[in-house]
Amino acid sequence: MISVGIVGGTGYTGVELIRLLTSHPAVSLDVITSRGQEGEPVTARFPSLRGAVDASFQAPDISVLGACDLVFFATPHGVAMDMAPQLLACGVRMVDLSADFRLRDAAEWARWYGQEHRSPELLAQAVYGLPEMNRAEIESARLVANPGCYPTAVQLGYMPLLKGGMIDPDHLIADCKSGASGAGRVAREGLLFAEIGESFKAYAASGHRHLPEIHQQLSAMAGGGVGVTFVPHLVPMTRGIHATLYGRLHRDLGVDEIQAVFDAAYAAEPFVDVLAPGSHPATHWVRGGNSCRLAVHRPQGGRDVVVLSVIDNLVKGAAGQAIQNMNIMLGLPEATGLECGGLAP
Amino acid sequence: MISVGIVGGTGYTGVELIRLLTSHPAVSLDVITSRGQEGEPVTARFPSLRGAVDASFQAPDISVLGACDLVFFATPHGVAMDMAPQLLACGVRMVDLSADFRLRDAAEWARWYGQEHRSPELLAQAVYGLPEMNRAEIESARLVANPGCYPTAVQLGYMPLLKGGMIDPDHLIADCKSGASGAGRVAREGLLFAEIGESFKAYAASGHRHLPEIHQQLSAMAGGGVGVTFVPHLVPMTRGIHATLYGRLHRDLGVDEIQAVFDAAYAAEPFVDVLAPGSHPATHWVRGGNSCRLAVHRPQGGRDVVVLSVIDNLVKGAAGQAIQNMNIMLGLPEATGLECGGLAP
Amino acid sequence: MISVGIVGGTGYTGVELIRLLTSHPAVSLDVITSRGQEGEPVTARFPSLRGAVDASFQAPDISVLGACDLVFFATPHGVAMDMAPQLLACGVRMVDLSADFRLRDAAEWARWYGQEHRSPELLAQAVYGLPEMNRAEIESARLVANPGCYPTAVQLGYMPLLKGGMIDPDHLIADCKSGASGAGRVAREGLLFAEIGESFKAYAASGHRHLPEIHQQLSAMAGGGVGVTFVPHLVPMTRGIHATLYGRLHRDLGVDEIQAVFDAAYAAEPFVDVLAPGSHPATHWVRGGNSCRLAVHRPQGGRDVVVLSVIDNLVKGAAGQAIQNMNIMLGLPEATGLECGGLAP
Amino acid sequence: MISVGIVGGTGYTGVELIRLLTSHPAVSLDVITSRGQEGEPVTARFPSLRGAVDASFQAPDISVLGACDLVFFATPHGVAMDMAPQLLACGVRMVDLSADFRLRDAAEWARWYGQEHRSPELLAQAVYGLPEMNRAEIESARLVANPGCYPTAVQLGYMPLLKGGMIDPDHLIADCKSGASGAGRVAREGLLFAEIGESFKAYAASGHRHLPEIHQQLSAMAGGGVGVTFVPHLVPMTRGIHATLYGRLHRDLGVDEIQAVFDAAYAAEPFVDVLAPGSHPATHWVRGGNSCRLAVHRPQGGRDVVVLSVIDNLVKGAAGQAIQNMNIMLGLPEATGLECGGLAP
Repeated sequence: MISVGIVGGTGYTGVELIRLLTSHPAVSLDVITSRGQEGEPVTARFPSLRGAVDASFQAPDISVLGACDLVFFATPHGVAMDMAPQLLACGVRMVDLSADFRLRDAAEWARWYGQEHRSPELLAQAVYGLPEMNRAEIESARLVANPGCYPTAVQLGYMPLLKGGMIDPDHLIADCKSGASGAGRVAREGLLFAEIGESFKAYAASGHRHLPEIHQQLSAMAGGGVGVTFVPHLVPMTRGIHATLYGRLHRDLGVDEIQAVFDAAYAAEPFVDVLAPGSHPATHWVRGGNSCRLAVHRPQGGRDVVVLSVIDNLVKGAAGQAIQNMNIMLGLPEATGLECGGLAP
Repeated sequence: MISVGIVGGTGYTGVELIRLLTSHPAVSLDVITSRGQEGEPVTARFPSLRGAVDASFQAPDISVLGACDLVFFATPHGVAMDMAPQLLACGVRMVDLSADFRLRDAAEWARWYGQEHRSPELLAQAVYGLPEMNRAEIESARLVANPGCYPTAVQLGYMPLLKGGMIDPDHLIADCKSGASGAGRVAREGLLFAEIGESFKAYAASGHRHLPEIHQQLSAMAGGGVGVTFVPHLVPMTRGIHATLYGRLHRDLGVDEIQAVFDAAYAAEPFVDVLAPGSHPATHWVRGGNSCRLAVHRPQGGRDVVVLSVIDNLVKGAAGQAIQNMNIMLGLPEATGLECGGLAP
Repeated sequence: MISVGIVGGTGYTGVELIRLLTSHPAVSLDVITSRGQEGEPVTARFPSLRGAVDASFQAPDISVLGACDLVFFATPHGVAMDMAPQLLACGVRMVDLSADFRLRDAAEWARWYGQEHRSPELLAQAVYGLPEMNRAEIESARLVANPGCYPTAVQLGYMPLLKGGMIDPDHLIADCKSGASGAGRVAREGLLFAEIGESFKAYAASGHRHLPEIHQQLSAMAGGGVGVTFVPHLVPMTRGIHATLYGRLHRDLGVDEIQAVFDAAYAAEPFVDVLAPGSHPATHWVRGGNSCRLAVHRPQGGRDVVVLSVIDNLVKGAAGQAIQNMNIMLGLPEATGLECGGLAP
Repeated sequence: MISVGIVGGTGYTGVELIRLLTSHPAVSLDVITSRGQEGEPVTARFPSLRGAVDASFQAPDISVLGACDLVFFATPHGVAMDMAPQLLACGVRMVDLSADFRLRDAAEWARWYGQEHRSPELLAQAVYGLPEMNRAEIESARLVANPGCYPTAVQLGYMPLLKGGMIDPDHLIADCKSGASGAGRVAREGLLFAEIGESFKAYAASGHRHLPEIHQQLSAMAGGGVGVTFVPHLVPMTRGIHATLYGRLHRDLGVDEIQAVFDAAYAAEPFVDVLAPGSHPATHWVRGGNSCRLAVHRPQGGRDVVVLSVIDNLVKGAAGQAIQNMNIMLGLPEATGLECGGLAP
């Protein structure tokens, strides 16, 4: 069995990691840390896991974590960068679900996160963990930066178009919608049921921290800087992201031609599902599962292509993709432990 | 008192009309028709109105309706066009909340609604009832076509930009989100709670019936044909529309300059509320009220302007705007009977 | 115009008071206090009120409040009892929406609220503000204790049965369900959308602070101590309370006989609506309005009577009932300013 | 591999059966029938299952079903009773998720379901499939009547109290709450999102079809006829049942004594989880899983015991329990294929 640990297991990403790892057949989940909840049984915080996990939260301890084969970080930004040098030195592999190693440019990171990057020397070896883009590098990575939830949905939707040079990279619009779990288990007034329920709003329209990540990655796909406007919205639901992606076609491509490019791009991907043209995926089609489901539209034969992309923000957008990366890093079949899902209704 | 009637009062638009009209100080709601529910007390269908209305549904009868000063149609499309000639001949004013008279082009109407237009001769006298655009014409109108819900939110958000020639009219993207009441009180599997709750999806991305209305109206504002991509989405809530509107600026305008144009455009409007730049209106800020609240963003100083526009789809997007039009047509103060609202949380 | 003030206007009860008072025709809302938000415009906290109110929050100041005719307290418990002696000495009437003056027994209050009662001498003159029970005393009251939300729904459902001696007062079961706004606008993890949405739970089943209030009041109705088990539950919705009330009939009464007692008891009440026997009121039938709607069942001809009672917890369960009390205290028609409501869907 | 079939796979119980069976390691799901959807791919109706199932719906055919080892019926009532004689004659085992074989008394069945029972001769051999009560009989059963969702939650909560003779069997009150999926995937106005969302109501308070099943089963536990009042309610959520069960203690038992009885009763049960005294289980603690979680309260030391019981209505309340029954009938480990679950948030 592979020994794994989780640093920072008290949030929504943490509970999802625990749920998935406790049913993973090749893994032993040996340590789950939390400074704030040290000593508390994991199931006291997450009663849904009763019967699945017996552990208590421990304080993070390098000597304990250093004995793991792989450690996940489900921490706020700024934690993984501090512990990474020591852990990597112990020979431990890391999958960081926080933002610490997603941006290649330490100065850009500092600008968006309001603090200096404290392990910039690791950025070069950190691999951006979108398997559909970087599978080969992930296989040999020691440190994987797990993508953000919005960036995952956006990249998978735009990748065939940008790599195929089909749309104007200077005019991308990503109108994205997320359930409330994306904001984490944080006691903030704006996240109360009575504030979010039966309402809909945009937020951070002038600049969200996932924007530089999206920009960096779409630019890599396009082979040059892109122009992208990204507006996130908050949906009165708990799980799910829906990205509505607009691109301006360079030339008059039929929807069937566009579809063929998507079909080909993802034919071998276990977790990207290209729907028939004209489909409208709902987020509950991916609830609890690691799939991204995509549909292509060309409304009214106009110049815009529209891609609809749905994921579960806590699975393909966080914990599931992290386990997918782990599987790749450790040479396991990529879908191991990720077969469940699709809880509908 | 002004005598008014409602044809087709059994849907969500109908109940909202009844709610607002029963508290309107200058109006007597004298007849509410329904073929299917004839003889049933209105409150048997809408118990929320117990104490506010005593009437029963009647079968529609021209001699009864013809005695009203004004009749609202809250019917499926195709009904108002059949009754309009007779009613107008009786000297009754009409506000049609259905789609029958919204498009100026009968052939276009037939294409989207799958039937011939049966009163094309009335299209020329029908006034499109967006007061912020057509107040003067509404004052003297006999027949007002009340705008659709999406088109209302979209037009109010784009109007200052298009009239001011600030954005490229050929690159408009309207990403819109609506609560489930917009689909009406219709027993369809796709509208069940278990299908919509805790999920989010786009629908009709390749062509929705509100698209030709949006196209017609934005073209009128721009002074020529526009290129607009419109994608509606279904939000797991009952009331509210949020339009996220993207426009490409012709030149480098600061957000303050854009804001000033909006402030000026709507300074005298009782029902359009321009928020401070960078605001994020939530649909629950307008629940039950007739306001449209708008906010302007220019993300990251880029070339796109983003306008966020929220309305209550049943009020400013339907029944409230219909009463606003009635007030204008009858010379009443425009806000009469529309002061309530803003039910939050 | 009657001059009124609100102490503690930043919570959900506060915003509802402001919404209702700003459209009350006989009232001038002259002061809204908040220590924490002093100086902030009210609409910055409650954008739904834009256009309805211009004031900013002020620090509470006896000299300002003392100039009002009536002051509402929408504060946490423990505040009104400290300010009441001074305000009453100024000749100001008070309606306290907190729990400070609801219990007649200061020791009982201290036991449930974990602090000594600091104005026990006022308990004798405080009138419990359930108009359907105490209208005459409210007319001449200087200090009204506005009932809790659960106790309102429970009392109105049980009152005819207990006053009529129809059920065994020793076997009452009140199974109650509330939307999340009842917990207030408080940043607590357990109130997050992601915790409450798409879930249902009981809470405080072993003892909730509304229990002594319910016990005191039902005992007063029964003319002696009752035995009542009260279990509150949290519903994934924002507004509304549904009380399901069980009573054991003393003798074999037909549902029509029971119904007749309810009809008679509430025939003259403007805000209690007795539905036909066998009805099932939904909380959205009273959303935004001050009504309590009741239905009586006698399942399968058994010995239990079941009463279903719904209110909007923020209106009849708080702000609306407070204004109803104010109207009575000031000699205004009881329903003034409370005509709106019934926002459905 | 065990060959299984599903008759009537197009509803919510059907999709849940398919989801669970496609990941069951010992089962081959060989046929899924639907008259109405014959020929349609299962994933066209249930896109959440894309990648998990390739089959299309077939018309029901005894020769095909007769080749299965076991067939599940997820049909409306009245279907299984017609096909059962032939299928059983083929040597096929049956688990019927409909109500056809739940009641032992054919006349009682006819009274509640409005039609004659057409296979009354099979009632004697049908085993009521609550494993915690009837495990031994299920092991050898050919025909299992899978319990209703409400009855499952109610029985598991009351069983230790009734078998232990701790409460008065003549005074049981089961106040139950269910998500909307319990009503099935049926296009009815009352099940629309706009009707159910942000609202709460009771229904069928005077008599629900699960009442005779509850009465029969609790009577069996009590060793004689019980008096039970059962009121179901509709919660604005999709999945989950919460039963709040009231019982009058025969004598002054401490909550610890009651707890000990529950602990002992369920110590060996894989799917019943007795929480610490005073806990408040939420339905999202069991979402997607086969567990029933229970908590015991004795409020204020009074004479009532309160049991809180939560299940996922589609899993332990339907498809999961059906598979649990299948496992027992076929000699598989009881939890096979039911390990997943606990999807929270």
